[in-house]
Amino acid sequence: MPTMLGQNQYGKAETRVVKIVRDGATHHIKDLNVSVALSGDMDDVHYSGSNANVLPTDTTKNTVYAFAKEHGIESAEQFGIHLARHFVTSQEAIHKARIRIEEYGWQRIGTSGGAEGAEHSFMRAGQEIRVSQITFDGERWQVISGLKNLTVLNSTGSEFWGYAKDKYTTLPEAYDRILATDVSARWRYNWTSDQAAPPDWDTSYEQARKHLIEAFAETYSLSLQQTLFHMGSRIVDSRAEIDEVRFALPNKHHFLVDLEPFGLMNDNEVYVAADRPYGLIEATVLRDGAEPLIPLHLTNI
Amino acid sequence: MPTMLGQNQYGKAETRVVKIVRDGATHHIKDLNVSVALSGDMDDVHYSGSNANVLPTDTTKNTVYAFAKEHGIESAEQFGIHLARHFVTSQEAIHKARIRIEEYGWQRIGTSGGAEGAEHSFMRAGQEIRVSQITFDGERWQVISGLKNLTVLNSTGSEFWGYAKDKYTTLPEAYDRILATDVSARWRYNWTSDQAAPPDWDTSYEQARKHLIEAFAETYSLSLQQTLFHMGSRIVDSRAEIDEVRFALPNKHHFLVDLEPFGLMNDNEVYVAADRPYGLIEATVLRDGAEPLIPLHLTNI
Amino acid sequence: MPTMLGQNQYGKAETRVVKIVRDGATHHIKDLNVSVALSGDMDDVHYSGSNANVLPTDTTKNTVYAFAKEHGIESAEQFGIHLARHFVTSQEAIHKARIRIEEYGWQRIGTSGGAEGAEHSFMRAGQEIRVSQITFDGERWQVISGLKNLTVLNSTGSEFWGYAKDKYTTLPEAYDRILATDVSARWRYNWTSDQAAPPDWDTSYEQARKHLIEAFAETYSLSLQQTLFHMGSRIVDSRAEIDEVRFALPNKHHFLVDLEPFGLMNDNEVYVAADRPYGLIEATVLRDGAEPLIPLHLTNI
Amino acid sequence: MPTMLGQNQYGKAETRVVKIVRDGATHHIKDLNVSVALSGDMDDVHYSGSNANVLPTDTTKNTVYAFAKEHGIESAEQFGIHLARHFVTSQEAIHKARIRIEEYGWQRIGTSGGAEGAEHSFMRAGQEIRVSQITFDGERWQVISGLKNLTVLNSTGSEFWGYAKDKYTTLPEAYDRILATDVSARWRYNWTSDQAAPPDWDTSYEQARKHLIEAFAETYSLSLQQTLFHMGSRIVDSRAEIDEVRFALPNKHHFLVDLEPFGLMNDNEVYVAADRPYGLIEATVLRDGAEPLIPLHLTNI
Repeated sequence: MPTMLGQNQYGKAETRVVKIVRDGATHHIKDLNVSVALSGDMDDVHYSGSNANVLPTDTTKNTVYAFAKEHGIESAEQFGIHLARHFVTSQEAIHKARIRIEEYGWQRIGTSGGAEGAEHSFMRAGQEIRVSQITFDGERWQVISGLKNLTVLNSTGSEFWGYAKDKYTTLPEAYDRILATDVSARWRYNWTSDQAAPPDWDTSYEQARKHLIEAFAETYSLSLQQTLFHMGSRIVDSRAEIDEVRFALPNKHHFLVDLEPFGLMNDNEVYVAADRPYGLIEATVLRDGAEPLIPLHLTNI
Repeated sequence: MPTMLGQNQYGKAETRVVKIVRDGATHHIKDLNVSVALSGDMDDVHYSGSNANVLPTDTTKNTVYAFAKEHGIESAEQFGIHLARHFVTSQEAIHKARIRIEEYGWQRIGTSGGAEGAEHSFMRAGQEIRVSQITFDGERWQVISGLKNLTVLNSTGSEFWGYAKDKYTTLPEAYDRILATDVSARWRYNWTSDQAAPPDWDTSYEQARKHLIEAFAETYSLSLQQTLFHMGSRIVDSRAEIDEVRFALPNKHHFLVDLEPFGLMNDNEVYVAADRPYGLIEATVLRDGAEPLIPLHLTNI
Repeated sequence: MPTMLGQNQYGKAETRVVKIVRDGATHHIKDLNVSVALSGDMDDVHYSGSNANVLPTDTTKNTVYAFAKEHGIESAEQFGIHLARHFVTSQEAIHKARIRIEEYGWQRIGTSGGAEGAEHSFMRAGQEIRVSQITFDGERWQVISGLKNLTVLNSTGSEFWGYAKDKYTTLPEAYDRILATDVSARWRYNWTSDQAAPPDWDTSYEQARKHLIEAFAETYSLSLQQTLFHMGSRIVDSRAEIDEVRFALPNKHHFLVDLEPFGLMNDNEVYVAADRPYGLIEATVLRDGAEPLIPLHLTNI
Repeated sequence: MPTMLGQNQYGKAETRVVKIVRDGATHHIKDLNVSVALSGDMDDVHYSGSNANVLPTDTTKNTVYAFAKEHGIESAEQFGIHLARHFVTSQEAIHKARIRIEEYGWQRIGTSGGAEGAEHSFMRAGQEIRVSQITFDGERWQVISGLKNLTVLNSTGSEFWGYAKDKYTTLPEAYDRILATDVSARWRYNWTSDQAAPPDWDTSYEQARKHLIEAFAETYSLSLQQTLFHMGSRIVDSRAEIDEVRFALPNKHHFLVDLEPFGLMNDNEVYVAADRPYGLIEATVLRDGAEPLIPLHLTNI
């Protein structure tokens, strides 16, 4: 046969599970989108169509729902660990499991009338999405967490000048511009073994997110790359459990409108919020000596 | 000619304008998406292609940017009033202007280090969008405001039973279900004339929104229609400046997962968040005696 | 009670049904997205939450699937007529039914090896979507059909000049421009009664679509409004069963790139395809004397 | 400094360029979405914000437009080669360029009246998108081409049974099911050096696409994995210039509707077209001995 099979994986993508926990009259909600990818001894199903080693993707979906009941959802990361361990340890043909989870945040509706509704009424917290990817090969764990769709903007404190120029360069230098981006960030935990205690996933997430946002706000920016590096190094410097951060930051251009034809000055007041094209800045920030393991393209994580 | 021209309108849709106001070191941001639709003596441009009566849509776009500077953006409604008045009063051929505005909310980034960044750093406030439509025909105003993409959920306090049944009915009755929806609401102000003082647009919006959300949370629901009516009547009862509210409420189904095949009980804990199909409940709530004027289909408002 | 209920309707939106018909080894496919909206004696469910008059939306979904088997899907329009008649005539409380259907086209995959696969293998035909809306109140029918997402472009044969100018006008006149739009069109059939024979829905659709596209291609355009009117009048002139057409045509701007800074001429060769903002041209074309009945905003039809 | 910079790249994403070529009265159109990513000596811009080595992303956008004029757009691949070579050879600090291009297809509008319009009137050809990625490091080329959003469906000729079962398995075996997917495919050319003649990019694309579609239609499928492998090996076997193919194939489930509650049989006629969750099958097919180089996650290519 002149062709052969390379890397392959399969599973059920985007299983939407909502878990309600009742603590007396007070309810708690977890809202996840879970995607499972399994790999192992899968040559036969590709070459001959024999499904003997294939646990159906329908089963992986069922398992997500059953585990939400059996194990609960303490955090997306812990839930993914339960799932990944299960698939790798219960099916001989499956050697590796990768669980990807999006988590949608909800906040309580406060009512002026007091308690009624407040205990079991929620509104979606924003467009920001918490993400995680848990991988297990039977021996070692890799946990990557992060967020996407976090839109931030500095209305001053950003410059862009002193850049390389060639015959196609027409951009004027900017000494006071809007800097805006939709943050997509992933950070990798250095926990890899059941022998060690895992981090407190929720605390770690909240702290990494906080450092990232504060670094964006506090950096006087000469380039989006510089801001990116500050955001990443702030996380690595502050959180011993995190060794690596990768960002994809679109530069959401806000162009000053030329109001001169109308006899008006535009003193950094009126901007066009542009859609396309946009700058795209991507980079990894690492703890000194750490090995880069986060995939370069964040879209699918 | 056996055919004739009916209702028609034209304009520039989705002009994205961001306005920064500097109050010393403290910045304020307004982020709008403005669509202009003009109508009037437009037979010629349709019949012969003569553009003599056509103010270019490019000009309406320019006007949006110029007015952001000349008049500022106190509120979306007030900004729309400036624009609508301008087009109708400055162009003889234009008899009616309709301005639609989406407003995207931003919140300040609080930094632990204190002031740095806090004065000019922002993050998008959520996926909810404030909308308004301002219409002017040279004499009377119509202002409709509202919101969309506000996702709310009650994890209990909702039933659905006692409904009509026919040979295609298989749905089991529910005595404790999740009720979730993406609220799309529009309310109409009874202000119509320059002779009267307009409402305080921002206060009115905040209060209508608050009543709507509280009514959702506080209503023990026997049907989504009942909840809808409570949401609307709460607004009309509480706000004298509002005569009419219309809702489009998708019933975002959350189905209990059958865990029995796995030997597990599901005591209202684990749900599938379904995408399609979804129920869709639409209705208008009116002040007694008021005339319904909000268009039935909210998508385009 | 100081508030009252206005217009209301409810139903199941976006029921996705695929029907396969086997004609020997040759298969035929119909792929629909069906949305049902019902109205009638629905005061109680809004005021008190009594569902006695409410046929569950789950039942309307079941009915769509059952009717795909019982009646087949000859055309989207005929399928909608079966559904609307059923709801209005079988439930006393339901006085009006509106069925909206999107139809996704599929074309056969031709294989070079001949028959194998060709009889039951398909690919999606394009991004264009055929739409229809069937309304029945127990006596009269209204059928509106049309299409959306049909993107067309003329690379020459379009001008725009001689327009009104004011102090905000900066647009240069254009004597040879690209004209491009995503056609959204709806046409209303004058068939309203079971006493008359309905049109051949598929033939009528194909012919109306053909006239619309040819009119776009063949019109030397001085304005998009003029092109629109030609598209609509061509349909009404050619199809006796159609009395009214409405269009929403975004003007998808293609701007000439200024290449002079790079020492290059741009003789109508290189364009930016812009996203937002865009012009939006909307109008109705009517048979002389016909009453305009198509809703002004096409988004929801 | 306890943190360091890892892999990084930057550029302008989604520059939308449309090129019209006039061959007498007959026009030809190329419609591309071009994303440029550059990397090289970029430590300073991240560490200190010095932009001395940074060619602005605005310049890369300008270059796309200028090259559309200077070099024309013979094919997406050839256009990407011009761009990549330019950035790497003209800027000392830039060591690697990666150009990603989406191409949108247009077909001519045939008019019944004959020539008028037919020479310069077009409609979008479908939702399928042709993609390519061209990478150059100053010495070697890597060209990956492919397509996405190609939706195909077999209404019979597909089974799924004999799979692994565990306590969470409830799926019934299927001996005649619908098999449907949105094909996302990328293939890698073995051309890497300016010393060798490149393939005819358009012919190669058309042929690879044809083999892929025919293999989908002609394969009697016991699993989607098997179908995938046939699609990939057909391409590699047929096209000597292609060494590797990778697919991401969502299994777009079509579930048979249970019509028994309504007293109806469903003999593989009426299906629910489900949205989420969906199976996701990913794999690489390689020429024997070839090195796998296509990134595992296709989303960003």
